[in-house]
Parts: sequence; structure tokens; C-alpha cells
Amino acid sequence: MQARPVVLLTLEYDGTDYVGWQIQRNGTSIQAVLEAALSELQGESVRVSGAGRTDSGVHALGQRASFIPSRVLPLRAYVAGLNGLLPPDIAVRAAELRPPGFDARRSARGKLYRYRIVRIAQRAPLSARYSWQIFPKLDLEAMREAAPALVGRHDFSAFRAANCQALTTVREVRRLDIHALEAGELCIEVEATAFLKHMVRNLVGTLVEVGLGKRSPASVAVTLAGLDRTRAGRTAPPQGLTLVSVHYPPAD
Amino acid sequence: MQARPVVLLTLEYDGTDYVGWQIQRNGTSIQAVLEAALSELQGESVRVSGAGRTDSGVHALGQRASFIPSRVLPLRAYVAGLNGLLPPDIAVRAAELRPPGFDARRSARGKLYRYRIVRIAQRAPLSARYSWQIFPKLDLEAMREAAPALVGRHDFSAFRAANCQALTTVREVRRLDIHALEAGELCIEVEATAFLKHMVRNLVGTLVEVGLGKRSPASVAVTLAGLDRTRAGRTAPPQGLTLVSVHYPPAD
Repeated sequence: MQARPVVLLTLEYDGTDYVGWQIQRNGTSIQAVLEAALSELQGESVRVSGAGRTDSGVHALGQRASFIPSRVLPLRAYVAGLNGLLPPDIAVRAAELRPPGFDARRSARGKLYRYRIVRIAQRAPLSARYSWQIFPKLDLEAMREAAPALVGRHDFSAFRAANCQALTTVREVRRLDIHALEAGELCIEVEATAFLKHMVRNLVGTLVEVGLGKRSPASVAVTLAGLDRTRAGRTAPPQGLTLVSVHYPPAD
Repeated sequence: MQARPVVLLTLEYDGTDYVGWQIQRNGTSIQAVLEAALSELQGESVRVSGAGRTDSGVHALGQRASFIPSRVLPLRAYVAGLNGLLPPDIAVRAAELRPPGFDARRSARGKLYRYRIVRIAQRAPLSARYSWQIFPKLDLEAMREAAPALVGRHDFSAFRAANCQALTTVREVRRLDIHALEAGELCIEVEATAFLKHMVRNLVGTLVEVGLGKRSPASVAVTLAGLDRTRAGRTAPPQGLTLVSVHYPPAD
């Protein structure tokens, strides 16, 4: 059998009404909705491989998903055709061809996530859907003092979900930037080779505890070194998180 | 009967799932939901007067609504109590006392609306809820050239809805600013003494036609002077519009 080319999609979605990327028994997943639309377009059952397993309620600006159709359609047909079949909260932004052997998940060399925090004085419906709303003031300088300890190649066991099933727990965080935006809004960008389950949300939750004065900036390095999940901060809620982009080697 | 003090609320809401501010037969309005919560809190039937009649799908950061309770509760009880009773997409940001005779609608001396436009290349779910998504590039300079003709005291008949029932059509636009934000995003701010029905959305729709090259900057002044609704641009969709604030004289 001849090696078949791979189609790679770039997806944007509002994760509010889904159980997450991955197919699950307890509700509708992004993956299931995409596979249904794709199977209809291709006239055959299609399975996709997604780069990031975004949690329930997490959004994406640049999720990637690859699949191997028995017949490759014109690439523009994937964008226009899928956007006609998908619901309003899921869209295909681009489709491109990759060589045989490429896989959106296995071939990825890095991912960028963005977490948005908004400081509010009262309940604020217009920022509720895409941010973590926090009432007290956050000490930005303390958070920025804590962040560098989390950058680099480390065992991130302390920041993974209790039910995370990854076999290895060493990951490399290339960048962790905390930006102060207008009107009490914070944006935390985390770029890493790969992530453990809930890793971004646990890093953000821990940094927010630093910002609230509940733990010292120096304690974050201790938590990381301790490898003990129960010592990290609470898991930040999903709606503040967006998978911004997935990086592949230029050769692919 | 002694003149009773007035309670003035500041409200934030996501208008997506409502028929608009005003009570209507064909669906749930913000006003009806607020009055139900308020009547429960006060233990009596309460009617409110809202400053702006936001259309179906239009949002608010600073809508104002006043009412005259037979017994005024502690002001903090209005914020906390109503926020406990209202659904997640409607919130009370503040409650304050105003002297007898004050009315949120009649006493208003000005309002500020903001309209958000996002230029997109493909369907983009994450900006769909709070903006008008436009595919072609807009000529910002042409839009800015057209805008000053709309500022000042004019008969805005050309920019009101066909079914607008206002008795007078002269309004004063104090300010109309077009801001270019990051990544193809535009924000149009319009401040006026008062607005006719659909006025902001018709102004924005006309300016966008200028930006698209469908009409010249100079034609906007001609349209305004012509007083003919059929000559203005299409009505911009509601989800891009937010009532930002309502202004009252300091004495009140």
C-alpha cells in the first residue's frame, strides 16, 4: 500500500458547551463533532488525531487535528465544507497537506496556551465566558518573581492532575510570561514542549495563590521540586484557558 | 403622600439570550427578569425604568434602571440580593439613592455606546459573541474622514429604524471615535444626548459601507441631510453593540 498524505486542520472553538476535545461517554466532544462533519464530507468514516487534549470548557484559537483520507479533496473544500457542516462554536481556519507519517499529536514540538484573568468588583457577565474572574487584587510583582522557577526542563509531577496518565512527567516550559492588560486584566502565556493533564491550570492556580499572598514567590520552586500534587495551588477554572497554537518542525 | 427616594441600579448583562431590555410578548426581556428578582427581594411588585432600550442581542456594561420601593433596603442588599437571584448573564454592579423625582430614563443627559468590529479571514467562534465579524479589509482612513459629519446636533431621521416611534428626531452626537485595536479589531464609540431606535447600529452600518468602498466619505453628510432612512447603510448586527454608560447631571 502506498503511503498516503495527511491533511492537517487548524481549528478555533468555544469550548463552553463541550466535554473537551477528546471523545467521552458523558457528553459531546469537539473531536466527535469534527469527525461526524468530516465523515459526511469525505463519504467515509474518518478518525482524527488532535494535538492538544483540551479540557471541558477550554477554548482554542489554533488547535490542530490531522487525518488520512482515502481520497484527498481540494484543500479549500475542507475549510468551506467543514465550516458549512460544523456548529457555530467550532470552525476550521485552515487546511494543509503534510507528508505521510505526520501526526498532529505525535509530530508536535510545542504548544502555546494563554490564560486570562480579570479582576472584578462585582459579578460581571461580559467577561465570565472567557476568563477567570477574581475579586481580590493580585500582586503582579510577586507572581512575576515566582514565574522563572517554572521555566526550563523539570519534572512537573506537582502540577499534574491526580488522574493524569502520562508515563513520563518531565516537560520543558520554554516561556511563562505574565502580561498586565487594561483594567485589571492579566494574561499568562505558557509555552512548552508538551503538557501534563491540567498542567497550565495548576501552574496558573499556584501563581494566583502567590498573587493573593497565600504563598510566597519562593515557595513555588519548593513545590515544583517536591513533586507532590497536593502541595500545588488549586486548579484554575477552564474557561480562562485557550490553546493558542501548536508548533511543528519546519521540515514537516 | 411624602415624596419617596429613588433607587438607581447599574447593570451589566450579556444580551445574547434576551429579546432586549424592554418587556415584550415574544420572549424574555432583561427588564422582566430584573423586575421578577426585585419584586421577590422587596416582597412587593416593582416596576423599573431603564435608561436605554437595548435591542435584542445588545449587551450592557453600565445600563441604569431606577425604581421607587415602598421601603428602601440597605443598598448593599440590592447588590448582593439581586446578584443571588439573577441568572449568570445579568448582574447588578452598584445601587445608589437618588432624590424623589429622579428617573433613570428621563433624567439621563447622555449615553455612551461602543461597537466592536473584528476583521476575520474565516469563521471565528471566539469573537462571534461580542462583535460584528467582517471578512473584507476596511479602509479606516475613509471611515475617519466620514465620521465628523455625524457629530453635532442634527435631525437623525436617516439613521432611525423604520418603526421608530420617537416624536422628535433631533439628537446631539457629542463624540464619534473610531479606534483601531490589535489584530484587525475596530471599536467605534458614540456618545450622544439620546438615541433614536437603531441609531448607533445604522451609523455603524453606514460607516462600514464607507470602509468597504461602497459609498464615499462625503456621501455620509448627504445621507444625513436627506433624512431618508432608505439611503443609509444596513443596520449593523446587535451583538457588536454594548451600552457602556449613562450620564446624569451631578446635581441629581
